[in-house]
Amino acid sequence: MAKYTIGLDYGTNSVRALIVNVADGAEAASAVWTYAHGTVGVMLSNDPNLARQHPADYLKGAEVTIKKALAEAGKAVKGFTPADVIGIGVDTTGSTPLPVDEAGVPLAFDKRFANDLAAMAWLWKDHTGIVEAAEITALAKKMRPQFLAKCGGTYSSEWFFSKLLHCLRKSPKVFAAAHSWVECADWIPANLTGNEAPDKVKVCVCAAGHKAMYNDGWGGYPDKAFLSKLDPKLGELRDRLPAKASDISEAAGYLTAAWAKRTGLPAGIPVAVGAFDAHLGAVGSGIKPGTLVKILGTSSCDMMVSPNTQKLADVPGLCGIVDGSILPGFFGLEAGQSAVGDIFNWFVNYVQPHGKAGTHEALQAQAGKLAPGASGLLALDWNNGNRTVLVDQRLTGLMLGQTLYTTPAEMYRALIEATAFGALTIINRFEEYGVKVREVVTCGGIAEKSPLVMQIYADVTGRPMKISRSAQTCALGSAVAAAVVAGKKSGGHASFAAAQKAMTGLKSTVYKPNAKANAVYRKLYALYKQVHDGFGVDGCGCGDHCTCGDGCCCGNLYNVMKDLLEIRAAAR
Amino acid sequence: MAKYTIGLDYGTNSVRALIVNVADGAEAASAVWTYAHGTVGVMLSNDPNLARQHPADYLKGAEVTIKKALAEAGKAVKGFTPADVIGIGVDTTGSTPLPVDEAGVPLAFDKRFANDLAAMAWLWKDHTGIVEAAEITALAKKMRPQFLAKCGGTYSSEWFFSKLLHCLRKSPKVFAAAHSWVECADWIPANLTGNEAPDKVKVCVCAAGHKAMYNDGWGGYPDKAFLSKLDPKLGELRDRLPAKASDISEAAGYLTAAWAKRTGLPAGIPVAVGAFDAHLGAVGSGIKPGTLVKILGTSSCDMMVSPNTQKLADVPGLCGIVDGSILPGFFGLEAGQSAVGDIFNWFVNYVQPHGKAGTHEALQAQAGKLAPGASGLLALDWNNGNRTVLVDQRLTGLMLGQTLYTTPAEMYRALIEATAFGALTIINRFEEYGVKVREVVTCGGIAEKSPLVMQIYADVTGRPMKISRSAQTCALGSAVAAAVVAGKKSGGHASFAAAQKAMTGLKSTVYKPNAKANAVYRKLYALYKQVHDGFGVDGCGCGDHCTCGDGCCCGNLYNVMKDLLEIRAAAR
Repeated sequence: MAKYTIGLDYGTNSVRALIVNVADGAEAASAVWTYAHGTVGVMLSNDPNLARQHPADYLKGAEVTIKKALAEAGKAVKGFTPADVIGIGVDTTGSTPLPVDEAGVPLAFDKRFANDLAAMAWLWKDHTGIVEAAEITALAKKMRPQFLAKCGGTYSSEWFFSKLLHCLRKSPKVFAAAHSWVECADWIPANLTGNEAPDKVKVCVCAAGHKAMYNDGWGGYPDKAFLSKLDPKLGELRDRLPAKASDISEAAGYLTAAWAKRTGLPAGIPVAVGAFDAHLGAVGSGIKPGTLVKILGTSSCDMMVSPNTQKLADVPGLCGIVDGSILPGFFGLEAGQSAVGDIFNWFVNYVQPHGKAGTHEALQAQAGKLAPGASGLLALDWNNGNRTVLVDQRLTGLMLGQTLYTTPAEMYRALIEATAFGALTIINRFEEYGVKVREVVTCGGIAEKSPLVMQIYADVTGRPMKISRSAQTCALGSAVAAAVVAGKKSGGHASFAAAQKAMTGLKSTVYKPNAKANAVYRKLYALYKQVHDGFGVDGCGCGDHCTCGDGCCCGNLYNVMKDLLEIRAAAR
Repeated sequence: MAKYTIGLDYGTNSVRALIVNVADGAEAASAVWTYAHGTVGVMLSNDPNLARQHPADYLKGAEVTIKKALAEAGKAVKGFTPADVIGIGVDTTGSTPLPVDEAGVPLAFDKRFANDLAAMAWLWKDHTGIVEAAEITALAKKMRPQFLAKCGGTYSSEWFFSKLLHCLRKSPKVFAAAHSWVECADWIPANLTGNEAPDKVKVCVCAAGHKAMYNDGWGGYPDKAFLSKLDPKLGELRDRLPAKASDISEAAGYLTAAWAKRTGLPAGIPVAVGAFDAHLGAVGSGIKPGTLVKILGTSSCDMMVSPNTQKLADVPGLCGIVDGSILPGFFGLEAGQSAVGDIFNWFVNYVQPHGKAGTHEALQAQAGKLAPGASGLLALDWNNGNRTVLVDQRLTGLMLGQTLYTTPAEMYRALIEATAFGALTIINRFEEYGVKVREVVTCGGIAEKSPLVMQIYADVTGRPMKISRSAQTCALGSAVAAAVVAGKKSGGHASFAAAQKAMTGLKSTVYKPNAKANAVYRKLYALYKQVHDGFGVDGCGCGDHCTCGDGCCCGNLYNVMKDLLEIRAAAR
């Protein structure tokens, strides 16, 4: 009898349920539901920094998608019954914390706060806490520098405590009414298992470690003295946060009878501790030491693991290094680019080159005919700031090399190349700190849909680009976690290694680097790095480019345009 | 009885005849004829650097346009007869030299060379002599550095000797058959007056001084030893070049009976020595000490004069400083931007933002609503290189500050601002070397048609932008020169000052700088200058931006994007 697990993947606009055969990773059925509240699931206001979600959508979404997926699987797979489902895994966006009462009920469900956006879930991309983030960074730099070393040196406005502190300052009534705050990734498994009371919730190390400065090395969450210095009320909250975080090898609990009734699933099946989508996406892409998983969409997440039995240096510029955040027993390393597909979308949707004729397809067809270096263009991939390695949101896009004949296809290709150079910078950073990248596995919309982008990535990095077999790696990763917490006895797997081996895989298509193109791109990358450092690195960090002979670290860029013209002449 | 002069203005694609009342500058009639040969007057080949003209078009053009303009004037002005025309002035593009035989007949008219592009006139924008230009620059640097000091430090591929040397190397038969080479600006007046034999041609100091390293201070054209070092045959040609150049106060000669018959003009009227279009355009705009005349079209020419009785420093980066090249008795100073309108045309015609909806008019309407600094964008105006102050064709365009929401109107405005910053850099350079800019008079297509561009120029430079009254300042300047060579006795003028006072003037519209906008633009200009120097100045010429504290001249640009974001926040 085949056994199945369900991966629930909570995105920004919708939730997906994926039913997977634990023996071979075959995807029996899938169902998607777009959240009912706000604009395509996101509640907005006049403040462009604000983005919230209604937790009611999380519950309705689980019910609707699980029921629909079960029905579909019944039709698609002979002999399938809901009783064959042995576990559930959950991945979500994050940091997406929501305020809850003593019973774990979201304040959003409380009539008093039904229309208060501060009582909703604070979505990952909510940037209302910019001032508070700077304050936390400044205090940590002075008082607890170790907190910053594990998250790239800067605490972000997208993260847990920035949001809490902003609520405390701007919506004190909501903050006062909240017994605690729970990450979406923790609250959903808790609700499915009847453990939503804050003292019962198992918090995942993925959210706590990457976004809330949790580390076993310093006793879990930031200490009360530190939080109190930000605000005494934040210090008081520290007492109500759990002492210990868990990884995805643990069960958050077991499906309640109520949820069994609501969905048609068997009561009592385990629900794995949650994690963020990118982290479980990496699991679903078969991440292991030496494998860089790149999730390529509007932005990129670049994930690696490194055995926690070996010492690992703090890698500057990474979004986080957290023990167990991806796979149990391994440090999870998260890097990424703030914008990838978003930059191409900007060019097509905002600049609208050639008007309606300037589609992604048309521009890629034209850009694909150009030789590397032939345009004379060079761009930076910073239209949405730089996440890795500079960790600086106050950076912007740049393009240079334009003549009176530069075409949109050349500009489009330069933008693709810029994101590829950004990707290479991340790979180099991993390797400079001893985390060897032996293969690159990509997944996400761009990996599936754009051969040109993938080929340029192969040519720029000089490495083959492999593609994850599943088009739903995040949900698949959750299903893998579910198969492990269900365990071998229930028909699942004894370990993540075994579950990944059985359930994940690669497509046969591999984009292989072209040596000639790579030779040109190595020259272009040197110029990219020079401009990258010239605008992105403060002061004198770029000794390589000193042109005055005094050994000082000038950032002079006099050679850049000239070198590009020479590369262009050679390419044409 | 009213008296008139004719200004003949030979452009890249067409020639114009303008009949002007010498008493008040009233324009009686005008006629334009597009050249018959090539593509809209320009003969092209597979080599994108090649651009030639057929001298037959110069002669036919004079005949057609003069006859037509005379006929129009007869209809438009009561009592006008061709006998009232007392002189002719000629302006042309340049350096546009053509090979001629001993009688001054162009080799293009010789059956043997009828289809040889090397025998045609080598149009100003012909860049086939890039290698030869570099060779001339290198030799002059070593052997005659004084030659370069008067032309911005670099001898251009667009100039006289680069073209001759290229012909010598690549079309030796044409070079061998040529008795000499004559600038278009000299050959047309010579032909109209029967003086086309090379030993009779009066060469204008404008072409000779700005483009052929002519200077009375070192005995006229470059010495034979120098030219022989480039090639012995070029040295031999030196003997056949005239000893002395003339300015526009002299007559090239008097209209021949044959030309009188061909055109209907009285025989024997004087034809002024020619000059380049921008130089006579400056005259037609009323240039005098302290007045910067900006001719704003696809590119810009920025012209000033300084009394030749006062010592003038070599101003580095200028296209030339030549005694008498604009007004007799004054040093003529020529600066300019390699592309102005061409950059806006590139954006509209090549990038085609918003497709067909992205017209200049639409983009300017949207860009006009934006506040200075509100876009966060900064651009360099180098899509066609930099003429002044860097004198470097191997520079390219740059734009930075793009986000995921940057619009075409913001980009268009940034491009306008970039050309305004380039204009300010030229003004500053003049003033740094003691040439005070007391007023700015603009003319040309952009000055006439784009209030937004003019307002931005006023706001960026902090100076009022005045506009020349005539829409045909080059032809008007030629008519002014004709009125002076005709002299007071014939009903013309005794001096250029008198002729300019009578015949030239300004429009009533003046674009005045807005103090608030200027305050923002002063901040943006500092950033422009920083990026300008970072990419445009070799090594350590930018001590201002040293960030390492060691006093070295770093070109570090770390502050640029951040400062732009602050300016943007303040502007929004």
